[in-house]
Amino acid sequence: MFLQIENFLSPDEVKSVAELARQAKFIEGRRSNPHNPTKDSAIGDPNDPMAQKASQIALAAFSRNEEARNFVFPKRLAVPSLVRYDAGMKYGPHIDAAYLPVGPQPLRSDVSCTVFISAPKDYEGGELVVHMGSEILRIKGNAGSVVFYPSTTVHQVVPVISGERLVIITFIESQIPDQLHRDMLHALNEVRAFEALKMDWRNRTQLDYVIQNLQRMWSQ
Amino acid sequence: MFLQIENFLSPDEVKSVAELARQAKFIEGRRSNPHNPTKDSAIGDPNDPMAQKASQIALAAFSRNEEARNFVFPKRLAVPSLVRYDAGMKYGPHIDAAYLPVGPQPLRSDVSCTVFISAPKDYEGGELVVHMGSEILRIKGNAGSVVFYPSTTVHQVVPVISGERLVIITFIESQIPDQLHRDMLHALNEVRAFEALKMDWRNRTQLDYVIQNLQRMWSQ
Amino acid sequence: MFLQIENFLSPDEVKSVAELARQAKFIEGRRSNPHNPTKDSAIGDPNDPMAQKASQIALAAFSRNEEARNFVFPKRLAVPSLVRYDAGMKYGPHIDAAYLPVGPQPLRSDVSCTVFISAPKDYEGGELVVHMGSEILRIKGNAGSVVFYPSTTVHQVVPVISGERLVIITFIESQIPDQLHRDMLHALNEVRAFEALKMDWRNRTQLDYVIQNLQRMWSQ
Amino acid sequence: MFLQIENFLSPDEVKSVAELARQAKFIEGRRSNPHNPTKDSAIGDPNDPMAQKASQIALAAFSRNEEARNFVFPKRLAVPSLVRYDAGMKYGPHIDAAYLPVGPQPLRSDVSCTVFISAPKDYEGGELVVHMGSEILRIKGNAGSVVFYPSTTVHQVVPVISGERLVIITFIESQIPDQLHRDMLHALNEVRAFEALKMDWRNRTQLDYVIQNLQRMWSQ
Amino acid sequence: MFLQIENFLSPDEVKSVAELARQAKFIEGRRSNPHNPTKDSAIGDPNDPMAQKASQIALAAFSRNEEARNFVFPKRLAVPSLVRYDAGMKYGPHIDAAYLPVGPQPLRSDVSCTVFISAPKDYEGGELVVHMGSEILRIKGNAGSVVFYPSTTVHQVVPVISGERLVIITFIESQIPDQLHRDMLHALNEVRAFEALKMDWRNRTQLDYVIQNLQRMWSQ
Amino acid sequence: MFLQIENFLSPDEVKSVAELARQAKFIEGRRSNPHNPTKDSAIGDPNDPMAQKASQIALAAFSRNEEARNFVFPKRLAVPSLVRYDAGMKYGPHIDAAYLPVGPQPLRSDVSCTVFISAPKDYEGGELVVHMGSEILRIKGNAGSVVFYPSTTVHQVVPVISGERLVIITFIESQIPDQLHRDMLHALNEVRAFEALKMDWRNRTQLDYVIQNLQRMWSQ
Repeated sequence: MFLQIENFLSPDEVKSVAELARQAKFIEGRRSNPHNPTKDSAIGDPNDPMAQKASQIALAAFSRNEEARNFVFPKRLAVPSLVRYDAGMKYGPHIDAAYLPVGPQPLRSDVSCTVFISAPKDYEGGELVVHMGSEILRIKGNAGSVVFYPSTTVHQVVPVISGERLVIITFIESQIPDQLHRDMLHALNEVRAFEALKMDWRNRTQLDYVIQNLQRMWSQ
Repeated sequence: MFLQIENFLSPDEVKSVAELARQAKFIEGRRSNPHNPTKDSAIGDPNDPMAQKASQIALAAFSRNEEARNFVFPKRLAVPSLVRYDAGMKYGPHIDAAYLPVGPQPLRSDVSCTVFISAPKDYEGGELVVHMGSEILRIKGNAGSVVFYPSTTVHQVVPVISGERLVIITFIESQIPDQLHRDMLHALNEVRAFEALKMDWRNRTQLDYVIQNLQRMWSQ
Repeated sequence: MFLQIENFLSPDEVKSVAELARQAKFIEGRRSNPHNPTKDSAIGDPNDPMAQKASQIALAAFSRNEEARNFVFPKRLAVPSLVRYDAGMKYGPHIDAAYLPVGPQPLRSDVSCTVFISAPKDYEGGELVVHMGSEILRIKGNAGSVVFYPSTTVHQVVPVISGERLVIITFIESQIPDQLHRDMLHALNEVRAFEALKMDWRNRTQLDYVIQNLQRMWSQ
Repeated sequence: MFLQIENFLSPDEVKSVAELARQAKFIEGRRSNPHNPTKDSAIGDPNDPMAQKASQIALAAFSRNEEARNFVFPKRLAVPSLVRYDAGMKYGPHIDAAYLPVGPQPLRSDVSCTVFISAPKDYEGGELVVHMGSEILRIKGNAGSVVFYPSTTVHQVVPVISGERLVIITFIESQIPDQLHRDMLHALNEVRAFEALKMDWRNRTQLDYVIQNLQRMWSQ
Repeated sequence: MFLQIENFLSPDEVKSVAELARQAKFIEGRRSNPHNPTKDSAIGDPNDPMAQKASQIALAAFSRNEEARNFVFPKRLAVPSLVRYDAGMKYGPHIDAAYLPVGPQPLRSDVSCTVFISAPKDYEGGELVVHMGSEILRIKGNAGSVVFYPSTTVHQVVPVISGERLVIITFIESQIPDQLHRDMLHALNEVRAFEALKMDWRNRTQLDYVIQNLQRMWSQ
Repeated sequence: MFLQIENFLSPDEVKSVAELARQAKFIEGRRSNPHNPTKDSAIGDPNDPMAQKASQIALAAFSRNEEARNFVFPKRLAVPSLVRYDAGMKYGPHIDAAYLPVGPQPLRSDVSCTVFISAPKDYEGGELVVHMGSEILRIKGNAGSVVFYPSTTVHQVVPVISGERLVIITFIESQIPDQLHRDMLHALNEVRAFEALKMDWRNRTQLDYVIQNLQRMWSQ
């Protein structure tokens, strides 16, 4: 399942990130996936202090956003990366790697995340396209918005025709690895949040009985 | 989990079964579990027409009882048997067999069931005792009541000291084999039955989303 | 995952079904889901011979379509139903029931299926909308096309604004109940179909080793 | 399953804990579950040195008790808390949270644990009542005894009518999260402990083969 | 795991099958796996009465052999086939298909089975070779013996250099699909068969508790 | 499954280990499994610097050997031990313990590993024998070779008749605990390594889709 949140970053934060990106050093995106000839993008150098500040802004947004956390059940978050697609750049259909070699213990990528810094009017093309078999979803978020989507899908960034597409991406290891489990627990938590106060006590306890035990069963 | 239902059989049905039992032929209970020296009871001969009529009465009660069906998610039911414990008889601690050789395809026993024909005042001792580790549950139902309990537990019938304990027993293969799954789905169905009309439409749909998908995942 | 296939029915079959639908008796759609006040459609009476002929045409198409069968791994198929949405009719967001009471053994609905008889130009509105969290997929197929989608999703038919939307729907119990399992096995089968002849024998055997054993593990 | 052990604390340890409790600062129990209006108890302040000493006594008892460890397969233990129910206090039916926010990594509560400091004669009411569907278990242990029970059950402390109920509670993350798995492995380990020396070598190896492989499969 | 049983067929039965094979019509083995160019054998025509008699002899042996049934937990058995490898014939490395199209419902092949009719001295080469990664098992049974092995392995029949290799093969759908589960349950059943009478009653009940509940959990 | 690799240690490393073993202190092997009367071997004292150097040589070999790592998906490795069987010594049929008490967190043994220091000509008997039911595998590797095999099997070292059998053993916790999962993922990775460059891009992406998602599902 997908979650798009508007104003994940404030307009000021978007401006700051865009400014940091102008100053940061970028390196070839293929470094993180050298075997994929279809990957053609520029990634903020993780050792560059400007790029690191941009990462911090994204991390802070994630930490304060309850809606996002309730949706992804985060356990660990990869350091967010600035990514820039200039005109002609793209990332062909691919599947995100199961494990990212970050720190002493690899991080399993369960949920993928794109924060949009550029506004849709800033570039032609460049949509994030997620393949659902013969149907596709095309996502081009507003500046400051974020989209979370399952790392288990084949997806791509179609070529940018003109302009520049600046985003921050990250990958999240979830406490609840299976997507359907995560969505079901999220749905029950929403039922609880909105309806529990109206419920008879016994039914509320029954609902809690299921929620807590599903979380026991499905989490790692 | 356990479910005890009063008046599962009407007083008239209880009387009829008791009368049929007086006329029916009984055989040694150990026949169904010859390797268990602690089994000492008398079972209504499955070929005896009186015993068969008693079975039919129990089956009919099961078919009409929605509370029971909502609890056990029945898929198949073994033919119910009359069982009589005279003074001194008992069935030591045991676990019900996983599969019963009934008909062309063996029946997996997920839920065990006892319908009480004798009233508690009719016999001393003879409780159904279910072992939950160091704790035990002692069950001695009213005439016409029924108790459903997981076939996965070690249980026993303690010796009848005086009087006669007449019951009907059966075993149920459930659509939802795992007990905790069954209990959780039952709990959500109860939340839905009692609270759905009070809920916002969206939350009701979320609840249905979970219930139907859990049933898909957990049923066989 | 989704699979849309063009020309699932030939133009002649589409015409025949449309003609049969004009002659068939229709009943209120809510009969199959009386508790859902948002369901407002007309269903071909399953006892009407014209409706039955329409069902047969859809069944025959399914039987001959290898692409569809390779995608859904069918085990059982519910009898297809004619469904008509006149202007103003709709089916609000809902989840398909886990089990349909068809025949002696209920059918688990794993994959849902819509065959489009009306052409998109025949009606305004009336899209099949599938909710993927905050993203949605809108599907309005050409006459004669079919779409298969997971029964585990919340979906709806938005109100028909004008014209008439005539479709045939059915539900499929799959040999591979889990959607991700089904998609992965489908993907490996495609790799095998297109690449096996180019492979070294040992690698081809390795691929078969995985495909056959995944099918053992994941099928019911 | 349940395990009750007598003399888990020695009479001297019981006296020490009771004395520490008289000196320790207590805070409102609801702090740990503010949304539950039925929780009405007093908890030893985790920052109070007297309360901390009481915790240490319980931890030491757990470390030395092989019977307890063989039953719960402990992986992590939450810091034990002193809890006091004065006359009129209670904790309504509830389910223990799946995860407790202790330390850098949340602790999954698989097994719940109550150590009785007060003797049964010290208070009326106040039983720990565990709901097994329509049956209930009522537990009121001797001073110094402990009871371990699955965190997956709905349970409550019924109102204390008179006197004072002083207990120490804790929550355990088990190496074997699923209760039935835990019980089965415990049962096989007991068979091995009591019977292995009588067995033919080959059968003893067969038993070990199953025990070690079940532990591989079921542990985390 | 593997099970080889000597004298599965009596010497007279072996002679009868050999005689029937001489009279039966054989067809090209590749018919059952036309895409495998490495398959080169002759199969008894399933419509030939002599071949059918040979099948019946093998089925009867299976029905009476308790050791075999305790090992494979049979649910369904494919009709056994006569297979003959003349000099130069072979079946290259392959994996048995997950499902065989026998009767109205396909049969999942969990356990593969070869009954040896020829004696080892009757042919050079022709061993059944099972690949366990870099190790291999070579099996060439005595006339009348049988070997059961997991259908999940890559295996082959190496070329017959001289003489004739006559066998009967079949495929079994097991009540316990997973091989390790099957082996563990088999091991516990053997412990029970040989040790239960020496055990204390309580431990025997504990062992039964595990065996019956594992069978509930692992069977289909 | 099994993997035997020749020249895992270079001839010089083999010589070094043999020399270190001559100088190292050895202790009775039964220390690590005192309850097993059939264990009769000598283990390099883990506190002896010579034994520690031998361990380091084996660890280094493992770190540089890609074939081994691709096969076992290592997560943690127990410190390798020198083990010596003099004439008459043996280790009877046994199953490796599920967990080894190494360091603060026990290590689950999924894959067992033997590095051969002695050459086959150095000793009579002393084969590693792995029981696959009624079939057995006998392994006696060349000096410098290694064998990896599933810890889930019953295995033994048969008595050394003459000479000396010197090996290094270790135990590996795998990222993919289940053996069949590990073998299937290994097989797909091999197909990818050898065939991906020949494949159409779409099929290569399909293969990656399966490999990455299986690794998500099956790893811990």
